[in-house]
Amino acid sequence: MKLSLNQATVKRLTLAEAVDGCVRAGIPGIGLWRDRVQEIGVEAAAKIIGASGLKVTSLCRGGFLTATAAEERAAALADNRKAVLEAAGVGTDVLILVVGGLPTGSRDLPAARTAVADAIAELAPFAAENGVKLAIEPLHPMFCADRAVVSTLGQALDIAEAFPAEQVGIVVDTYHVWWDPQLPESIARAGRERRILSYQECDWILPLPADTLLGRGHVGDGHIDFARIRELVTAAGWRGFAEVEIFNQEIWDADGDQTIATVRARHEALSLASGS
Amino acid sequence: MKLSLNQATVKRLTLAEAVDGCVRAGIPGIGLWRDRVQEIGVEAAAKIIGASGLKVTSLCRGGFLTATAAEERAAALADNRKAVLEAAGVGTDVLILVVGGLPTGSRDLPAARTAVADAIAELAPFAAENGVKLAIEPLHPMFCADRAVVSTLGQALDIAEAFPAEQVGIVVDTYHVWWDPQLPESIARAGRERRILSYQECDWILPLPADTLLGRGHVGDGHIDFARIRELVTAAGWRGFAEVEIFNQEIWDADGDQTIATVRARHEALSLASGS
Repeated sequence: MKLSLNQATVKRLTLAEAVDGCVRAGIPGIGLWRDRVQEIGVEAAAKIIGASGLKVTSLCRGGFLTATAAEERAAALADNRKAVLEAAGVGTDVLILVVGGLPTGSRDLPAARTAVADAIAELAPFAAENGVKLAIEPLHPMFCADRAVVSTLGQALDIAEAFPAEQVGIVVDTYHVWWDPQLPESIARAGRERRILSYQECDWILPLPADTLLGRGHVGDGHIDFARIRELVTAAGWRGFAEVEIFNQEIWDADGDQTIATVRARHEALSLASGS
Repeated sequence: MKLSLNQATVKRLTLAEAVDGCVRAGIPGIGLWRDRVQEIGVEAAAKIIGASGLKVTSLCRGGFLTATAAEERAAALADNRKAVLEAAGVGTDVLILVVGGLPTGSRDLPAARTAVADAIAELAPFAAENGVKLAIEPLHPMFCADRAVVSTLGQALDIAEAFPAEQVGIVVDTYHVWWDPQLPESIARAGRERRILSYQECDWILPLPADTLLGRGHVGDGHIDFARIRELVTAAGWRGFAEVEIFNQEIWDADGDQTIATVRARHEALSLASGS
């Protein structure tokens, strides 16, 4: 499996610095974030990427589609259309969606989930016209209230199947799905239905920090059996990259080159051990 | 729905104090914890309960059944047999199982899950002989690595269905299952298969504290739609208690009577609002 560095792993680096770090480390892919693209503009970002020879494996992220108030909803849709154009502009066909939590003050989870499906229905044709696929990312259920009401791969696939596989798919992020008792069936289904658009790696470490968003570890530092999950996605037909995306304050505070070296070393050790 | 106070909600109170608090507040049920039972002995506990007229809705808890090392596994089984006898001794037929996380150093989640099913197979007949049912409690997936490799109701039901409904069932704890996209189907299935042994309430509040075990809130303080879940369990045939179990350091530090009054007030408000 080829390695891609999601630039959130080296959060302090600019796009140019992250690209340069990947090139120097011999990492062939990169996942981009919108804030770092917007900082220099899509055209400049595309130029840097083009010169580097790196493959852009995803753009993070669109989403936050659960608002029901008309104005808020329209703003979210407009921002997602902008994200689609940015994805196309930097040369990736994968826009990752973190779908959003419960709207403020609401406890109506089924309604929020319906709102997500409705918003994707509005965005998918526009994305397709621009050569971009929407990749629904189920987040760990501990983020259900505040970040993503899509909590499992099965649920993401249920939403995706209303659309052509050329328009909407899913993300398999080990951190978010490793615990799922239905993981083998859901990954196999995702492959069968041609829905896997991104495979991300990041380890589950304990204890969780006060900000649970930042409790993620380098591959190998935690409790996830990556060899097993790689086997599942490979058996499901995935021939793309393993994109490493780690949210962790300590890792963010570390030297970027050091982090990139660790990501690469862990990837190689895992590939060797798992034969993938 | 009748109210039961799980005594972990008033962690600082002894069994006698918790029982007394329930009686004075007009709460008809109580869920007991083994440490508070053992502190005075099963016989003394049974006498206090008997005199109070309270219904014991559960004993917490058995479980931690994922060890594979022979000695550790034997010790866990022995402790669970003891828990069965304690449950029978205090007059409840429901022993709640928190099944345990990954064994130390292991990343083999399927193996840990198999170990749980195997251990339950050894315990279930013994429990049945003593008039006690084993209630598998799926815990929120954020506890998968360290506390419970059973993460969903569907998974708990898949384990339970290998046994007669008179021996093994499941717990529906709102805190652990509220996010589950398959909640309606799983609760309906649990009812159909006569597996619901306990219904527990506790709210999901944010942010999670540093010790995520203690991040639970009074009913109404968080993001869970209790009326919806009560409707689901009632439609599934549940005619038992709503047992309120809250792990929260602030609530534990509060005055016991005050906590009991809040639990009761929230229960009454919810029952009024939801017609259950």
